[in-house]
Amino acid sequence: MKKTTVKDLLSTPELMGTEVEAKGWVRTRRGNKHVQFVQLNDGSSVNNIQVVLDMARFTEDQLKPVTTGSSVRVTGKLVESMGKGQTSEIQADSIELYGTADPASYPLQKKGHTLEFLREIAHLRPRTNFFGSVLRIRSSLAFAIHKFFNERGFYYFHTPLITASDCEGAGAMFQVTTLDLNNLPKNEDGSVDYSKDFYAKPTALTVSGQLEGELGATALGQIYTFGPTFRAENSNTPRHLSEFWMIEPEMAFYDISDNMDLAEEFVKYCINYALEHNIDDIRFLSERFDKGLEERLRFVVDNDFVRLTYTEGVRILEESAHKFEFPVYWGADLQSEHERYLVEEHFKKPVILTDYPKEIKAFYMKQNEDGKTVRAMDVLFPNIGEIIGGSEREESYDKLLARIKELDIPMKDMWWYLDTRRFGTVPHSGFGLGFERLVLFVTGMTNIRDVIPFPRTPGKAEF
Amino acid sequence: MKKTTVKDLLSTPELMGTEVEAKGWVRTRRGNKHVQFVQLNDGSSVNNIQVVLDMARFTEDQLKPVTTGSSVRVTGKLVESMGKGQTSEIQADSIELYGTADPASYPLQKKGHTLEFLREIAHLRPRTNFFGSVLRIRSSLAFAIHKFFNERGFYYFHTPLITASDCEGAGAMFQVTTLDLNNLPKNEDGSVDYSKDFYAKPTALTVSGQLEGELGATALGQIYTFGPTFRAENSNTPRHLSEFWMIEPEMAFYDISDNMDLAEEFVKYCINYALEHNIDDIRFLSERFDKGLEERLRFVVDNDFVRLTYTEGVRILEESAHKFEFPVYWGADLQSEHERYLVEEHFKKPVILTDYPKEIKAFYMKQNEDGKTVRAMDVLFPNIGEIIGGSEREESYDKLLARIKELDIPMKDMWWYLDTRRFGTVPHSGFGLGFERLVLFVTGMTNIRDVIPFPRTPGKAEF
Repeated sequence: MKKTTVKDLLSTPELMGTEVEAKGWVRTRRGNKHVQFVQLNDGSSVNNIQVVLDMARFTEDQLKPVTTGSSVRVTGKLVESMGKGQTSEIQADSIELYGTADPASYPLQKKGHTLEFLREIAHLRPRTNFFGSVLRIRSSLAFAIHKFFNERGFYYFHTPLITASDCEGAGAMFQVTTLDLNNLPKNEDGSVDYSKDFYAKPTALTVSGQLEGELGATALGQIYTFGPTFRAENSNTPRHLSEFWMIEPEMAFYDISDNMDLAEEFVKYCINYALEHNIDDIRFLSERFDKGLEERLRFVVDNDFVRLTYTEGVRILEESAHKFEFPVYWGADLQSEHERYLVEEHFKKPVILTDYPKEIKAFYMKQNEDGKTVRAMDVLFPNIGEIIGGSEREESYDKLLARIKELDIPMKDMWWYLDTRRFGTVPHSGFGLGFERLVLFVTGMTNIRDVIPFPRTPGKAEF
Repeated sequence: MKKTTVKDLLSTPELMGTEVEAKGWVRTRRGNKHVQFVQLNDGSSVNNIQVVLDMARFTEDQLKPVTTGSSVRVTGKLVESMGKGQTSEIQADSIELYGTADPASYPLQKKGHTLEFLREIAHLRPRTNFFGSVLRIRSSLAFAIHKFFNERGFYYFHTPLITASDCEGAGAMFQVTTLDLNNLPKNEDGSVDYSKDFYAKPTALTVSGQLEGELGATALGQIYTFGPTFRAENSNTPRHLSEFWMIEPEMAFYDISDNMDLAEEFVKYCINYALEHNIDDIRFLSERFDKGLEERLRFVVDNDFVRLTYTEGVRILEESAHKFEFPVYWGADLQSEHERYLVEEHFKKPVILTDYPKEIKAFYMKQNEDGKTVRAMDVLFPNIGEIIGGSEREESYDKLLARIKELDIPMKDMWWYLDTRRFGTVPHSGFGLGFERLVLFVTGMTNIRDVIPFPRTPGKAEF
């Protein structure tokens, strides 16, 4: 069933000297009256296969529609290439056109395009070398994630996207409704009658699957989620999407130390997987956009992450001579500049900070004996700052309930979550990784809109 | 990093005779003054590890809170079990309680529960053997899907969930909004002012990622999607969810025959993966709920699927003596009863029907020469009926445009899709599989609400 791809043609010595077939899109055609060269790509690799057309066998007219972006089927003999950096090429016997790409209107001509321009034509940008590489790396990383957890006995657990809880607290939510907004059913007091809505109550898109993930972990032991997540914040920054993918593992019988071990092993595994499976794409991006990329990836894979408490981290920042835009003091939520200083300047290694002040962390984190901090952990990376956030979870029913009351979280949304602590509660931990943050790091891209096929941001829901 | 699970304790001969640790939830405790037996489960297997407590070393008081649903840590020596069907057990040195489960309030006591009751406590039902098995199989199938496509050079392509298109046509949609429904901004004519909405226009949850998937395939070659999908139909049936997961592969340079080969190989691969990795769970479900399950799975894996046209299929149905509830005639949309008759009664094999009347299929399917049919394919299964639907896609810009106009599909939503045919169009194909349909088939369950952790159906969005 498997078809021969351009990647196969470039990397399978057994094919050399045989009759082959290649199907793909023309990147360029150049040459003269005697010989023409077509660079053909089918998405399987950032590299093209060169098709050599002996013009004694083809006519100019025949090749006229073979322009950048057109699609063709080529047959011929695979031979060693004389060209620099190319292993093999096809000496064409035939070239058949599937579809033209009118040079006057096809937007992806040879000349370079800005990333901003390509965002406007997101439906075509996967056809560029550049986005091809990003999307192949994205796909590899996704597979690495599934493979990592599968090998360790974790179950992939699908938490719901539509939720009636408004207590997740991680951010502003999108409402989901089937009511006709131009003809809303109303209660006697004039408010919207949600009993007529699809779910008979107000519902929204989830901002995190963690709480449901804990239900899975306290039954199946070790689970992970990997799915779309939503934030309705009006944030027009290079780091925010309103629809993104998140990975949230949750593990029974893990304390914070196990959690840190897992997070470190996990993120190294994923990066290493990309280095092993996508080195051509990484090097292409390295050369074009970010010279330090490959080195930075190896730096993370090869170094033990430094582990210290938030309190120790703040002390280092306070004692440093560095001028920060945002002030540093115990109790402050660290900014990306602080996190990057610790990683890039001070330790020159990835860092895991633990035991944050409880006021700046979520209600479900395990409370430390000191009454001031919780057993949180954030993994900090060069260039990115926080890439993973997690914690040991509070397993004491009484302590969790007290914190929920303290923060005025509505109990109507919490009974099922509290049941995990009422019945057979266990120590457990988990963390969350924004998938696009990882893809940003591994591709060296700087704008999150460029690492997802069709970005959703305020005012933008095209394609 | 990997921890020793109950599954390991039951299946690792090297552990026999060593000191081990087990953490999990108590399924049952029974025994007498001399010896007590705890069945311990941690979600890693449908099978429990038996913990033997010599009452010369433990007190009744100490074991009193060790009730069904409580959580414990046990240490002791792993020895061969004398019990029937058990390979190993732990002779306990210590037992430590993590959390109680008050027998007066814990809903999952030993006695059997109806599936209806368990649906009401979906936050706890993963703790039952039954849902544990279903969810482990679900997770395995999801991994098998990723593995299958990864091995064949497909890229996992994340299509957006929030969409501004209303032309997908596969079903009723949920609206997504950040407008305050109790205080809607209005235009001068009294209609809702969507320029104030998050995306500055009406948006909805996707009913299919296929159109965007085609953008991926016509750039990267072979892609697949695997993500949540939504239908806002008010269907309260055992076969419908308003939020479910769907797999949609899309392949450049595949004709309908390649598409059928891939679909058959794919579904057999997934089922076979579950048979190889989840045989304990499958046999448990087989014994408890569906005696024919394992045999039915092997039947699908071991048989070539029969391939015939819709026209031939209708003829067989018309000529059969079977009484159908719904009439059969050329042009009719086949019902589950018709599909199952072909599979279960006539051919006694899975069936792929092709070349359906264009009126009952989607606008994007490749039009046959006869002017009446399209190159659609449906894969039909025992018990389930249609499990996969797909087609070769119409690659001709002119034919596709004509069909779009014929069906009055708004062009404002179609320009980007049509660009795939304007620029370097290629023959391509794809199909869709509702993930829960596959999980239903492999688990033998009959209600789709029982194969997803937290089902969303009309009026139901709990947890």
